[in-house]
Amino acid sequence: MRTMNLAGMIDHTFLKPEATEKDIVNLCHEAKQHKFATVCINPAYICTAAKLLHGSGVGVATVIGFPLGATMTEIKVQEIFAAKAHGAREVDIVINIGWAKSGNWEAVAKDITRAVEAAHCCGVTIKVIIETSLLTEEEKQKAAEIVKASGADYIKTSTGFAGGGATVEDVRNLKAWVGQSVKVKASGGIRSRETALQMVEAGADRLGTSSGVQIITV
Amino acid sequence: MRTMNLAGMIDHTFLKPEATEKDIVNLCHEAKQHKFATVCINPAYICTAAKLLHGSGVGVATVIGFPLGATMTEIKVQEIFAAKAHGAREVDIVINIGWAKSGNWEAVAKDITRAVEAAHCCGVTIKVIIETSLLTEEEKQKAAEIVKASGADYIKTSTGFAGGGATVEDVRNLKAWVGQSVKVKASGGIRSRETALQMVEAGADRLGTSSGVQIITV
Repeated sequence: MRTMNLAGMIDHTFLKPEATEKDIVNLCHEAKQHKFATVCINPAYICTAAKLLHGSGVGVATVIGFPLGATMTEIKVQEIFAAKAHGAREVDIVINIGWAKSGNWEAVAKDITRAVEAAHCCGVTIKVIIETSLLTEEEKQKAAEIVKASGADYIKTSTGFAGGGATVEDVRNLKAWVGQSVKVKASGGIRSRETALQMVEAGADRLGTSSGVQIITV
Repeated sequence: MRTMNLAGMIDHTFLKPEATEKDIVNLCHEAKQHKFATVCINPAYICTAAKLLHGSGVGVATVIGFPLGATMTEIKVQEIFAAKAHGAREVDIVINIGWAKSGNWEAVAKDITRAVEAAHCCGVTIKVIIETSLLTEEEKQKAAEIVKASGADYIKTSTGFAGGGATVEDVRNLKAWVGQSVKVKASGGIRSRETALQMVEAGADRLGTSSGVQIITV
């Protein structure tokens, strides 16, 4: 049995484009109070959050090439460096879903491998979002193999912007495919403690949710 | 009465994250056949489209900081330069909506002005998306004033990813607020010839739609 520190597994998330500075301040206060792993926010708010969380133990996570994954590789890399410079400790990046759907797995792998190298060269934890709801079972497995080979720290299910989020079955399969060297982040649609615990039971090490406070206080 | 060349006003658009290479090839063929203004695609497909459209008169348009607008200004600028280098002629960029909703209009203006300068210094047409569906009437007017002051070529209504698209009323208001120096691009939910003509009548100079072929052939 693993020790359960549910709060410490939560990326306290607010990625809506209309999030205000006040929303981000509230998010950071809640994250400190409940000792969440990180706040997960859009890049333009990294500086704000990093200042508020300095010395608290709560990290700043941001998103790269998000949510479509269809930006140029060099821009994903630049975005990782800029995120680090602004104060991010973790980055969640989206694979090029269109290339995956085209069967161009070599291009998918190259894109992600360059991003993982960029993140690791500057000491940033990287989670790779494969957007499970847009992939077939076969494509999910292929994507998981690429994420594993890239040396990424986590594989993550969903952006939350493509309709459909984490399922217990996906989390279980991803964990089986990536093995022990890669952790799994479940995200999208996790709104209750029950769902959160199911995801952890299925193999998730991190949970991306905007319902963190409800999940740990109910 | 202005001369009506509806096809020449259309940005033939395919921005879904799951768009395949084949989808982009088809899009480009249709754009050449019907003499659309541009194809509007995600940045990772600019090279593919630019090669296919070379010499055709149809331009490549891409999207910057899309669809959330919440990336760092320096990344928006880098993305514009990379888009130009890859072969884009036009860029559609999203304002920082969160800063607008925070009332931090100075930051909104700075972000967009730097992007407009970057685009114009390399000869790229720039359209600024204000995401009307997330703004109040007052915020739309303020955003329009900022876009006008920035020297952008177009103001654009919507990303198509935030629920809600162009309305006739919004297009008419935006045209009145920006005056003759800035053009208006209507986008989001334009699926019929009738709607397209209403948008043009209301003051739109460009239409963003994935239904271009239906619109001009019906």
